[in-house]
Amino acid sequence: MNIRPDPDTTVPAVTTGPLPSSRKIFATPDAAPDLRVPLREIILSEKAGEPNLPVYDTSGPYTDPNVVIDVNSGLQRHRTAWVRERGGVEEYEGRSVKPEDNGNVGTAHAAKAFTGYHKPLRGLDGHKITQLEFARAGIITKEMIYVAERENLGRKAQLERAEEALANGESFGAEIPPFVTPEFVCSEIARGRAIIPSNINHGELEPMIIGRNFLTKINANIGNSAVSSSVEEEVDKMVWATRWGADTVMDLSTGRNIHTTREWILRNSPVPIGTVPIYQALEKCNGDPVALTWDLYRDTLIEQCEQGVDYFTIHAGVRLAYIHLTANRVTGIVSRGGSIMAKWCLAHHKESFLYTHFEDICDIMRKYDVSFSLGDGLRPGSIADANDRAQFAELETLGELTKIAWKKGCQVMIEGPGHVPMHKIKINMDKQLRECGEAPFYTLGPLTTDIAPGYDHITSGIGAAMIGWFGCAMLCYVTPKEHLGLPDRNDVKTGVITYKISAHASDLAKGHPAAQLRDDALSRARFDFRWEDQFNLGLDPETACKFHDETLPKDAHKVAHFCSMCGPKFCSMKITQDVRDYAATLNDQEQGMAQMSAKFKEMGASVYLDADKVKASNKVL
Amino acid sequence: MNIRPDPDTTVPAVTTGPLPSSRKIFATPDAAPDLRVPLREIILSEKAGEPNLPVYDTSGPYTDPNVVIDVNSGLQRHRTAWVRERGGVEEYEGRSVKPEDNGNVGTAHAAKAFTGYHKPLRGLDGHKITQLEFARAGIITKEMIYVAERENLGRKAQLERAEEALANGESFGAEIPPFVTPEFVCSEIARGRAIIPSNINHGELEPMIIGRNFLTKINANIGNSAVSSSVEEEVDKMVWATRWGADTVMDLSTGRNIHTTREWILRNSPVPIGTVPIYQALEKCNGDPVALTWDLYRDTLIEQCEQGVDYFTIHAGVRLAYIHLTANRVTGIVSRGGSIMAKWCLAHHKESFLYTHFEDICDIMRKYDVSFSLGDGLRPGSIADANDRAQFAELETLGELTKIAWKKGCQVMIEGPGHVPMHKIKINMDKQLRECGEAPFYTLGPLTTDIAPGYDHITSGIGAAMIGWFGCAMLCYVTPKEHLGLPDRNDVKTGVITYKISAHASDLAKGHPAAQLRDDALSRARFDFRWEDQFNLGLDPETACKFHDETLPKDAHKVAHFCSMCGPKFCSMKITQDVRDYAATLNDQEQGMAQMSAKFKEMGASVYLDADKVKASNKVL
Repeated sequence: MNIRPDPDTTVPAVTTGPLPSSRKIFATPDAAPDLRVPLREIILSEKAGEPNLPVYDTSGPYTDPNVVIDVNSGLQRHRTAWVRERGGVEEYEGRSVKPEDNGNVGTAHAAKAFTGYHKPLRGLDGHKITQLEFARAGIITKEMIYVAERENLGRKAQLERAEEALANGESFGAEIPPFVTPEFVCSEIARGRAIIPSNINHGELEPMIIGRNFLTKINANIGNSAVSSSVEEEVDKMVWATRWGADTVMDLSTGRNIHTTREWILRNSPVPIGTVPIYQALEKCNGDPVALTWDLYRDTLIEQCEQGVDYFTIHAGVRLAYIHLTANRVTGIVSRGGSIMAKWCLAHHKESFLYTHFEDICDIMRKYDVSFSLGDGLRPGSIADANDRAQFAELETLGELTKIAWKKGCQVMIEGPGHVPMHKIKINMDKQLRECGEAPFYTLGPLTTDIAPGYDHITSGIGAAMIGWFGCAMLCYVTPKEHLGLPDRNDVKTGVITYKISAHASDLAKGHPAAQLRDDALSRARFDFRWEDQFNLGLDPETACKFHDETLPKDAHKVAHFCSMCGPKFCSMKITQDVRDYAATLNDQEQGMAQMSAKFKEMGASVYLDADKVKASNKVL
Repeated sequence: MNIRPDPDTTVPAVTTGPLPSSRKIFATPDAAPDLRVPLREIILSEKAGEPNLPVYDTSGPYTDPNVVIDVNSGLQRHRTAWVRERGGVEEYEGRSVKPEDNGNVGTAHAAKAFTGYHKPLRGLDGHKITQLEFARAGIITKEMIYVAERENLGRKAQLERAEEALANGESFGAEIPPFVTPEFVCSEIARGRAIIPSNINHGELEPMIIGRNFLTKINANIGNSAVSSSVEEEVDKMVWATRWGADTVMDLSTGRNIHTTREWILRNSPVPIGTVPIYQALEKCNGDPVALTWDLYRDTLIEQCEQGVDYFTIHAGVRLAYIHLTANRVTGIVSRGGSIMAKWCLAHHKESFLYTHFEDICDIMRKYDVSFSLGDGLRPGSIADANDRAQFAELETLGELTKIAWKKGCQVMIEGPGHVPMHKIKINMDKQLRECGEAPFYTLGPLTTDIAPGYDHITSGIGAAMIGWFGCAMLCYVTPKEHLGLPDRNDVKTGVITYKISAHASDLAKGHPAAQLRDDALSRARFDFRWEDQFNLGLDPETACKFHDETLPKDAHKVAHFCSMCGPKFCSMKITQDVRDYAATLNDQEQGMAQMSAKFKEMGASVYLDADKVKASNKVL
């Protein structure tokens, strides 16, 4: 049993303040000088002799010491003005919260409600609302300008001379420009190859873009289940996940307090929030999939559209005719949404209402610019089931639905596997691009083996890195708790860092023009024994520092030219500095070689114990 | 400061006993009924309705409850009889241990010596000694019979009908047979495509094979450094690493007590032990690379040959002419051995004595059948330095040296990178196969990005899985402490499990005929909610169980048809069982569909809450 304080008085506590040796800076796009696009600048030591490194920043105002965080009030809603100023929307009295929205929770178990209320906006008929509609009309929105600036990582100078770096990768047909412009963003969205998930009611959002020609993104799933976790924990997990680099967050809550949990998350979230509306719809009919109806689902969509959810996972590709294809699978249907719909279809012996009402769904989502994340309800749940007919039949239907959603003006991405051995990953990516007209792919892992419960962040991080390289636009993280239980805060961090690794490895391999700048800065710090810089340039400075200090805790060791792995006499980095210094002094190679030879002999063993002495001596050679 | 007990009385304590729900079984090869080839059998619950699963077992007698472990005496030396019975060897008075062998350690810091002493064996002139020499003569050794049986995982029946499974992978030219025979092992060794590292003085060894047409292997590095760890810790780490699946262990100790540490490890090791002899040679000249001589190195080789080291990393490819190629690298030379030799070459302005004396080295190693692991002293230490001229120049030299070693009758494998972005990995594998005549490749990672200190088991596990798939025969693990400090016991385990994942993902992707049997068994357990079976079939049952129990600790939950991730109402596995049960009852699809529809409606929400009820009701449908 969870012992919890009186729910009416509990306010989520979240982590704030900058990461070690980092500060928030803001870029100002030429095309919209009123925008402030956040970046994180990693401050290097004076010894570095190189500029600080700006990196992509998903953490929102929580890492900005100039912003007063009050989770009770939520973040500021700067973006609402952008939506209003381009017009075509109306404010209206939204749907009232009903008891079933929170699973008919009684007073004793009710979570404290979020106090603020913002009347929802919705699009007016005959007006452009979605980013896709604006892009097709050639209109560049503030969101487009914002994400263009954000993608460039504040490294315009480096990027403009990055053509060589680009040529270094293998992009498998991606077309990554050296420098991202608002016009490029607009054209990518217009052709459906990228999306900016951005509900007009999510005013707190710092927009981001998902597409294979942009930085590879990652999603973190959070959400309580009926047996574990609380609203406070979930809000904290959202802030925590974005602190470490989650680009979007999915709230997969089930059970009671589902509406309230989501409201707290949305009002405090700087990143796009995704949901699976069928989960809440199911709560509204007491967990009986057979009792689901289109009306109930439709009402749930509107509820969540008004709250500001940025993308919906909709398992409209789980068609009645495909369900029998899963009967002989080793692990059947493993998607929660997919299995709910399969059960509904079987019980009623009818085509899925998500499929039959797909155009109605589009009409609702378009009014709020909620993006589709077409769910892979029949994704494989084991190596044995990978790339089977059930999976690919659904993918083909998702391709068909993509074209309908596009026709309706909606932004679309496509969800993918699952469990897939390495040699079957590229087949998935290639088929998705073909079937779905290059709409962004958003995959869970894939897990490359089933045999490591407790380590599925790793089994899947391998597959994620590969599919990201092959063209996947967003990687949905998997935590160490996958298959075993609800992830806690530590699991969320481990999942996020693992997926940042996969996403970054993808960007390097694709030849993203600026990706390697961070690797190089860190490697230079490593080679120079700038330990603090090495920690701070890494994805998780705190863990790196902690690991180092476990064996060499003194401050003096932070400037030592060795670590406990090799000790002072065996550090190859130290020896190799001698080699480099030597080479730098060469005019005539033979002469330099002989001089160096004499010097090393003279200094003998002491050279080996004090690389600084060698460096100093080189200066007077 | 380490507070340690009086070293003279400290005996290593190691972990013994079987893994959860596992027992050691022995296979008896037809070709040599006196051999007992160990396997681990994972015992499944009665509910499983399928046979127990035999898996590869690296853990030696430590997991055999019928063996009394006494680290003071070492393991039994069964293999010495195999060596003696085929003849061609002599026992002789070995080299005496000299003070410098342990870094001239004083009494106060001396570790307790291992008490037993076995006079060494060495090959006689004009006789076959190495596995390569026997293989070339078409003579099948007991080691070959042993490894053939071991590779088959006790799954002869499954393997014999595995041709279909084989066809499923992409092997990139590997030729993996459905069933491994001693004759196949012999032919692979004869052509240099596989090795059995097996010093004739390592009588404790349970032989294993390294080659791209066999199961992908992993190595764990252990070893103290001058500033951290003790003999006891290192022996414990060796046993601990093999418990979790390390196929070989490298003792990379430096500092004092280096001879004594190695003796303890060898006398207690069931797996091949590798070393880098230059580390000890350097200790013998007080850490001054400039003072290294061929005589000193030669004496160290003989010392370690007599102890029973199974393979030596020898950085003979670091030639004088290549050193300047590293001068403009971001991270120069990062191999300890490589940097030592580079410094020696520069100081003396001479070609490396490892290169000039390479044939002498072969003659020594052949007499004991110590395998070469030709070291990659110029491997890249950062993404920026990957696949550069320094790295590939050395690789080309390693190809040249491979042919010399083969000519001399020595077994050879080749070490590889390092830090390499994903798109440059396959180039490494292909070039190695070409340059080195398909001699087994043994790589460190590679790390696919530099930006995650503290998580380099993951950055490298990605690269390791890929290069294993492409044809790498053994993957050298990287722990979370890489670049930061000496790994402790937990780090060793994390590194080993991560690399077991990479190796297994490789085997699946290559189409190893039996690899998927374990995935399938685990996935069936998962789908059937056999929680204990799921834990026990995984690579780390203890962690899986612990993670599960964090949120659902009760015994009753071990049979629950849900976990805390989704809770009882949302478990897709549960719903999908209904689908499967339904499909199983179908004769006429339409009729079955209608029946199921009626039944689901009738049972309503309760169906959803109790999958067992559904299953029961299906039986009377």
